[in-house]
Amino acid sequence: MTYFLTMPTPRSSSPLNRGRNVIMMVSDGFGPASQTYGRSFWQYQNNYTSDHITSLDEILVGSSRTRSSNSLVTDSAAGATAFSCALKSYNAAIGVDPNGVPCGTVLEAAKKADMLTGLVVTSRVTHATPAAFSAHVAHRDMEEIIATQQIGDYELGRQVDLMLGGGRCFFLPNTTEGSCRTDSRDLIREAQTHHGWKHVLFSGTEFESLVKARDGAVPLPLMGLFNSDHMNFEIDRRNTQSDEPSLNRMAKVALESLKANSREKGRGFFLMIEGSRIDMGAHNNDPVAHIHEILEYHRTIQVVKDFVAQNEDTIMISTSDHETGGFTLGLQVDPKIYPEYLWRPEVIERAKLSTEILTMKLMAFHANEPKVKSAHSQERRRRVEHYVSTEILERGLGIKDPSMDEIESLADPTVRSADVMRFLSRAISRRASLGWTTMGHTGVDVNLYAKGSPDIGKYTMDKLRGNHENTDIGNFMSWFLDLNLKDVTDRLAK
Amino acid sequence: MTYFLTMPTPRSSSPLNRGRNVIMMVSDGFGPASQTYGRSFWQYQNNYTSDHITSLDEILVGSSRTRSSNSLVTDSAAGATAFSCALKSYNAAIGVDPNGVPCGTVLEAAKKADMLTGLVVTSRVTHATPAAFSAHVAHRDMEEIIATQQIGDYELGRQVDLMLGGGRCFFLPNTTEGSCRTDSRDLIREAQTHHGWKHVLFSGTEFESLVKARDGAVPLPLMGLFNSDHMNFEIDRRNTQSDEPSLNRMAKVALESLKANSREKGRGFFLMIEGSRIDMGAHNNDPVAHIHEILEYHRTIQVVKDFVAQNEDTIMISTSDHETGGFTLGLQVDPKIYPEYLWRPEVIERAKLSTEILTMKLMAFHANEPKVKSAHSQERRRRVEHYVSTEILERGLGIKDPSMDEIESLADPTVRSADVMRFLSRAISRRASLGWTTMGHTGVDVNLYAKGSPDIGKYTMDKLRGNHENTDIGNFMSWFLDLNLKDVTDRLAK
Repeated sequence: MTYFLTMPTPRSSSPLNRGRNVIMMVSDGFGPASQTYGRSFWQYQNNYTSDHITSLDEILVGSSRTRSSNSLVTDSAAGATAFSCALKSYNAAIGVDPNGVPCGTVLEAAKKADMLTGLVVTSRVTHATPAAFSAHVAHRDMEEIIATQQIGDYELGRQVDLMLGGGRCFFLPNTTEGSCRTDSRDLIREAQTHHGWKHVLFSGTEFESLVKARDGAVPLPLMGLFNSDHMNFEIDRRNTQSDEPSLNRMAKVALESLKANSREKGRGFFLMIEGSRIDMGAHNNDPVAHIHEILEYHRTIQVVKDFVAQNEDTIMISTSDHETGGFTLGLQVDPKIYPEYLWRPEVIERAKLSTEILTMKLMAFHANEPKVKSAHSQERRRRVEHYVSTEILERGLGIKDPSMDEIESLADPTVRSADVMRFLSRAISRRASLGWTTMGHTGVDVNLYAKGSPDIGKYTMDKLRGNHENTDIGNFMSWFLDLNLKDVTDRLAK
Repeated sequence: MTYFLTMPTPRSSSPLNRGRNVIMMVSDGFGPASQTYGRSFWQYQNNYTSDHITSLDEILVGSSRTRSSNSLVTDSAAGATAFSCALKSYNAAIGVDPNGVPCGTVLEAAKKADMLTGLVVTSRVTHATPAAFSAHVAHRDMEEIIATQQIGDYELGRQVDLMLGGGRCFFLPNTTEGSCRTDSRDLIREAQTHHGWKHVLFSGTEFESLVKARDGAVPLPLMGLFNSDHMNFEIDRRNTQSDEPSLNRMAKVALESLKANSREKGRGFFLMIEGSRIDMGAHNNDPVAHIHEILEYHRTIQVVKDFVAQNEDTIMISTSDHETGGFTLGLQVDPKIYPEYLWRPEVIERAKLSTEILTMKLMAFHANEPKVKSAHSQERRRRVEHYVSTEILERGLGIKDPSMDEIESLADPTVRSADVMRFLSRAISRRASLGWTTMGHTGVDVNLYAKGSPDIGKYTMDKLRGNHENTDIGNFMSWFLDLNLKDVTDRLAK
């Protein structure tokens, strides 16, 4: 009954099949409503008509079914394993099958075929999606082990040539401040000493210097870990002093670097690029962080499309692992009052920071307020309320009409961080008439987009059209690159 | 920037272009999550694997952008006018442009080209979607006038050859019980006397007798108005004594009848089939009514696909006007408890009636309970609570674990009908972990499906691929049938 090949079809390994490139783009936690949201907001901001469509809309080819082996609602680990190993596994599985047995990934099989490989993300590089391409563990939370495998300390040795993102803390020994490791291993040193990594960068400034010095294509293997944890949300990256490259900038440099370095070998490359934090904006039910992650993803898509158009034997695929948030473009605030048919992009346009960073700001403000005697509590309250209404709500979220209830809840000195974020996300979503049904994931099919370089025939592109199982995407990449995933699985078993 | 023709491209009117058929299927209020819901529920019920896909999934070609001329969230009137007149209009507009000027529809232009025309719906035939193909009024609520135009009492005369659905009340004089008219016009009589309607049927039994007598293809023009108001929800139709045909049965007879009658003229037909009440299940936030409307729509799609496969020069298109309900496959019940990643089809499978009909049953029970003195109120309360827990919750919705709070709210003698429906929909949705954000519409793009008969070339089908403005669908139909909408608009202006 399925539309498309469900098993990798081995292709002839003639020299013609070499030098092919695949760029797999993952918009994590990005359901159909989020794409409509991104387009309509962008049209509103730029005063475009409704038929002025985004870089993604132009290349819609179908949709992907997302359920995992053990649930109708997948997580990112099972979702990414469906892409990387072309098989359904359980929620939390990182590059392992439903029995927990390591499965060969497209990235590893590409490496075996002498191709170059890259991972470019905005989460920790040890987070579920990049991990599922480059590691094999029973549970996504085993990020310490994921990091060791990513530098090359496992059966197959180093498989990744270029790795950009956040998550430095899992590479630093527990003797270092800000480390997330429980042991004292210094993976940065190990990576350079034992696994051949030439460059390890920690900031956007370092990254740009190297790019400039090397005319846009950096030497490999290279690792850039630009944040201890996840990288900043795009809106916060822009509006704070963070020294991090944007996703579209990392993608651009990755493409040029993989191209330059693989051309020498005549082997092509596999690159996975993830708009990781589209998902996290949605987990926070924060339409502000969410929209700016989406717009940055659109810019990144444009960068990749330009690359595809100017090269040969290259295909980019863009899809999501799942929807996050139960996000909808319409909200009924009062169950007894029938809603108007609208949502309000102008509300979102006025916001300048994510609810996550505003929560941190407010919690810091609360923490810094001196514990005062009750005689002064009135004054303290006024000060906090002023900060809430001016710095948090007005300057942060563009909200000029806070209710007394909103201010009081946020100014309460006992308020908890999780509640602050929920209140802020609710304040902006309600005003914009945007709905959320969960802080977790939902089961809706996600959109599938693809573009091939001018030499790629209709026969090949037509394979991606229509409604697919998410595993079909892994199978397609494997087929297109003439990879042998089973061979890698066998090597992992040894 | 748009992917597809935005203006009707006149095609040569060679004899070859005659005899073409278009079947436009509208799944009203059916967003991407509803299709995933329908598929996953059906897979669950039938114990199918995840790659066993539905009649719709097999023919996914793209998506449709739904916003109207005056809002990011359309209603069904503007949504249907985008299909019928190939232009964006304001919410509530029925076959009129943003200035309220009547616009020629695909149905009217098909009639002008000597084709046969049909409307098959499960709402009142005077409701927004069928109305926008066959009438021109400033506001969708003007159903009395819509009915007069549908029988043929307007500038163009009778345009519809076959009209099946509900809505009898707008065709009966106000002297008749159950009429919705404010005047004494008897449109049934007028239709037969002045506008040439040969048959007017009021029940499924009459319909089946005629179909049987005529070997499956009924004579035209024929009107079947099977309910005073909307037809029953499919689940209620099956589980009550209603004498109504199903959507897939009406579709089958409509196809055979239009084919048989148009073949004589060698002219082809235009047929609009709507799963009207998919939308209404979602408006009620009732996942039970919603799923059974979806499954019946899938069966109807299969009927139409079979027809398309066995005929020539025929295209079916299926899309939605908009999403309804902000429906999502995931629900966080408590904002402080992180949700599990799942939803529960087994909960939905146990339900046997819509929350709408259960509300009517409960309100009738309340009304029939004698007003008792306080001495007896305890006994009355027990009786009502027993009815609520056995008849409504357990037999109706399959809920065997009602909370005291649920029973008490529903057994309250002062409870209002709207609240009963909300409580019931909430009770079943919560247990199934399904989310809703509104009783109105939302703005997400909807899926686009299409299938052409074996002789239809790839060139033609490829025009429907990708992401489209909803008006593109009207333009496509007009182009494929070589229609002249502007000519009809001009005739309407006279």
